[in-house]
Amino acid sequence: MSAETAFRDELIEARILIPSGVDGVFGRSGLFESIVDGIDSLITRNGQDQDAEIVRFPPAMPRSVMETSGYLNGFPHLAGTVHCFCGDERAHQTLLRCLEAGEDWTEGQKCVDLTLTPAACYPVYPMIAGRGALPQGGCTVDVASYCFRHEPSLDPTRMQLFRMREFVRLGSPSDVQAFRDNWVQRGKTIIGDLGLPVAIDLANDPFFGRGGTFMASSQRDQALKFELLVPVTNPEKPTACLSFNYHMDHFSEVWNLRLADGELAHTACVGFGFERLTLALLRHHGFDISSWPQSCRKALWNS
Amino acid sequence: MSAETAFRDELIEARILIPSGVDGVFGRSGLFESIVDGIDSLITRNGQDQDAEIVRFPPAMPRSVMETSGYLNGFPHLAGTVHCFCGDERAHQTLLRCLEAGEDWTEGQKCVDLTLTPAACYPVYPMIAGRGALPQGGCTVDVASYCFRHEPSLDPTRMQLFRMREFVRLGSPSDVQAFRDNWVQRGKTIIGDLGLPVAIDLANDPFFGRGGTFMASSQRDQALKFELLVPVTNPEKPTACLSFNYHMDHFSEVWNLRLADGELAHTACVGFGFERLTLALLRHHGFDISSWPQSCRKALWNS
Repeated sequence: MSAETAFRDELIEARILIPSGVDGVFGRSGLFESIVDGIDSLITRNGQDQDAEIVRFPPAMPRSVMETSGYLNGFPHLAGTVHCFCGDERAHQTLLRCLEAGEDWTEGQKCVDLTLTPAACYPVYPMIAGRGALPQGGCTVDVASYCFRHEPSLDPTRMQLFRMREFVRLGSPSDVQAFRDNWVQRGKTIIGDLGLPVAIDLANDPFFGRGGTFMASSQRDQALKFELLVPVTNPEKPTACLSFNYHMDHFSEVWNLRLADGELAHTACVGFGFERLTLALLRHHGFDISSWPQSCRKALWNS
Repeated sequence: MSAETAFRDELIEARILIPSGVDGVFGRSGLFESIVDGIDSLITRNGQDQDAEIVRFPPAMPRSVMETSGYLNGFPHLAGTVHCFCGDERAHQTLLRCLEAGEDWTEGQKCVDLTLTPAACYPVYPMIAGRGALPQGGCTVDVASYCFRHEPSLDPTRMQLFRMREFVRLGSPSDVQAFRDNWVQRGKTIIGDLGLPVAIDLANDPFFGRGGTFMASSQRDQALKFELLVPVTNPEKPTACLSFNYHMDHFSEVWNLRLADGELAHTACVGFGFERLTLALLRHHGFDISSWPQSCRKALWNS
């Protein structure tokens, strides 16, 4: 049995994760959620000086946001679209007959104007774009949502549905790079406070297909993505728990995000993976949170 | 302009709700979320004596759970299925060409094994069923999730994506009815503590089609559903903020939920709508939470 599966089974046995029957889709226990809440407060404290606008989005966003943002160029295989029944009573009878007969009843489902949110920051750019030019000095947004990526896995650190919190910075290139560099340091401090081993590494997104290989190496060549890695399920393959992404003017071009002086803005974000951080803590400190290191308990719950 | 739209526009103007471009899909401000958090704590305090198992589910659940539970009999029009791209590089090129040309690129999306969760308690029944017979005396589960219903509306109290928390009781018929009656009283007290006007009413679910009319009146005849109503957007049509549902043995038959003595269990749930309660508070007490009634502030934030 692989290390990934063994850890998942321990979590299920302890009823910390509730299996749903679909790989990568779990219920979370009260214990799991109390750790998530602690991480959330810790991030809030660390971001207090960012003067960020807080906004929380639901787990789905307009389909137009996915279409416009370029997500389907790189990650068609991870995207989830929402489809609904739009028929009449006769179509409903057909649906029920198919279901009863064990046939595919979903063929009549129509794609509506929503997709599942692939990363918390996607709805931020159109929100800001709707307000005209950025304020002098740019702006920072504190955003979180449930996210979806279609990659069923036995590894509990690779869930299909997981929560992400991000700080998103929109401003001049130098400003945005300074933001990213600063958060790399803060991120290391946060992970250290939690008593977890951490390494930083250059990274790339999991772009689709052969064209994706080129996109990935271009992203690496420009050093646009870094990750903070913590060993969780497999010491040979540590897990990205935080990521730092410099988009240059990608989202600004798409959404026409302009600085106060009229120039195109640059954007960057730092993202925290709640489920991965929680699993890293459970892996390193055990399932009995009362025995966790004092400094870690203090960081999470001030207790 | 209708009362519903006027209130929505006020909330958007105050940046408490962030419009997404799709009706019934909004971002929430930090102020909105602090009210949601207060309601969450208030529910926790009121449910402390229930000895409930806490579990939190993601916004999607196995498609098999929707198929098995009978949801598609009554509510095909509200359900959302998740569809993904499962093609190769050539199919990806076709997708991108369609997108570029403004044509429908979603035809190749395939329904995967997930649906959006229509009400928080759906994943609870298979979870309990997987454990064998209920413990002596039954059990109670404290569950919450983001939910989806495909009913785009200009009324902010009718969102497509919203959060629901429920206590679900599984036990003998008399036990489950006592649970429901007890929570009707608790619910009234909670709404009263928040300084909101409340009425209780017999209700029915919005079943689909002509067959649905029969299901709705049967549900009413058996007095299976009650709602606590608070006037929010329209005084003529108060909004259901809590609902109390007695399922008799519907879910138990579907999932074979048995009492310790081997009899079929009965189930009931009480559901709290976070968004609706939050909007009710904003409507009645205004957008400046520092000026809210002392008793309401104490109930929410102990401040």
